[in-house]
Amino acid sequence: MEVVLIGSGNVATQLGLALKDKNVTVKQVYSNNIIHAEKLGKKLNVSYISNISDIYRKADIYIYALKDSVLRSVLKKINIPDGIHVHTGGSISMNVFKGFASKFGVFYPLQTFSINKPVDFSNIPICIEAVSMEVQKKLVELAGLISQKTYIINSEKRKSLHLAAVFASNFTNYLYDAAYKILQDSGIDFEIIQPLILETAEKIKTMTPFDAQTGPAMRMDKKTISAHLSMLNKKRDLKKIYKLLTYDINKRHNPNN
Amino acid sequence: MEVVLIGSGNVATQLGLALKDKNVTVKQVYSNNIIHAEKLGKKLNVSYISNISDIYRKADIYIYALKDSVLRSVLKKINIPDGIHVHTGGSISMNVFKGFASKFGVFYPLQTFSINKPVDFSNIPICIEAVSMEVQKKLVELAGLISQKTYIINSEKRKSLHLAAVFASNFTNYLYDAAYKILQDSGIDFEIIQPLILETAEKIKTMTPFDAQTGPAMRMDKKTISAHLSMLNKKRDLKKIYKLLTYDINKRHNPNN
Repeated sequence: MEVVLIGSGNVATQLGLALKDKNVTVKQVYSNNIIHAEKLGKKLNVSYISNISDIYRKADIYIYALKDSVLRSVLKKINIPDGIHVHTGGSISMNVFKGFASKFGVFYPLQTFSINKPVDFSNIPICIEAVSMEVQKKLVELAGLISQKTYIINSEKRKSLHLAAVFASNFTNYLYDAAYKILQDSGIDFEIIQPLILETAEKIKTMTPFDAQTGPAMRMDKKTISAHLSMLNKKRDLKKIYKLLTYDINKRHNPNN
Repeated sequence: MEVVLIGSGNVATQLGLALKDKNVTVKQVYSNNIIHAEKLGKKLNVSYISNISDIYRKADIYIYALKDSVLRSVLKKINIPDGIHVHTGGSISMNVFKGFASKFGVFYPLQTFSINKPVDFSNIPICIEAVSMEVQKKLVELAGLISQKTYIINSEKRKSLHLAAVFASNFTNYLYDAAYKILQDSGIDFEIIQPLILETAEKIKTMTPFDAQTGPAMRMDKKTISAHLSMLNKKRDLKKIYKLLTYDINKRHNPNN
């Protein structure tokens, strides 16, 4: 199976490394930024290009790991009706490929990726959607090479999944960032809080998040809450978040109060 | 070392189990609710009481694992000036014990505890504060029996730590809960998102949360953000959270836009 990677960001990089690791032939890397293309091309030890017209035309699968807006503009310029075309986005419809190719689908790895943080793909759910059973079979085959977890998920469900992921990962990470700032301002090493963060994430493997909830908001500990709010007087942004989430947690767990 | 546990909630339960596991003598469990006292007493195989006047008077250490308000009311009724008295709270000053005992301190395990979820205490940071070096020595000794991570932290720093923990754990868990609801309403199993949650927590061991940030808010993907907002039209609470956190992430990562 020959793959062309279109994109050179976090997803393209980690996916490329996983494919290479499983001996899938990544034929070429494309990015409109030649420096980025080169960086990923060298990492994968494959050729890299920044001209759309130079894209290899005989690949089996073209994987577009691009922002929504960039994907649309690349599709307008590319002219390769053959092969299977997939994107890796959580929120983009499969039908973005309609009119550009006949075999297409979605190959969405549900994970948070950063360029320089290696990940173990074998445990990452890969959500597949395909225009036909033939395409689906090929995508399941490719997914099976790099991960043990393949799901067939339609566009609508995938959008919900992506929305849930924003809450569970992007927003969560921002709360870690808030904690980081609070600790830093008090001269406390962030490391001390890492076991807590990990246990909070581990906990919801064996109980629902609803049952796992703890803290002053849930037990309506007004004294602690008001002490926290006054500690946040100089951090207005965090105070807003504190107020909103405390109110919501309290409402969810103590609906009659 | 003989310990009396005052309280029977999440912290008292998990701390009691850890002490028992390391062969520290838990002499007695007190709770004003006899059913709760019995439950924990039986778990630890020790005597349990619900009358303050029945508390064993010759313990080395009295550990108060109670809500702030309850702690104050118990202290008013207890009359045991001997022994070391400590509480386990993140936000309560050590000086709450002033006037009730001469040897006192704080024994704050930085973790999220639930009654029925066992935890490995060896990895849990225990934050100690003590009125004297003599008391500190004893508390460090006790902490060392159950954990490899002991920190000497004063009341002010402990309050910051607790505030950071609310963001990194309580609020984070509420976002997992939000993700759970979104998935449930779309008929998707929560399990699919667990590897993402775990990786998000693991990631910040090797990079700062600032560097680990990903997602539509950070890359200013307006199309995805507005699609998400319209998906949340029937979940007003979550929509508010989405708006606030997206705004804040964008402001933090793209300050010039």
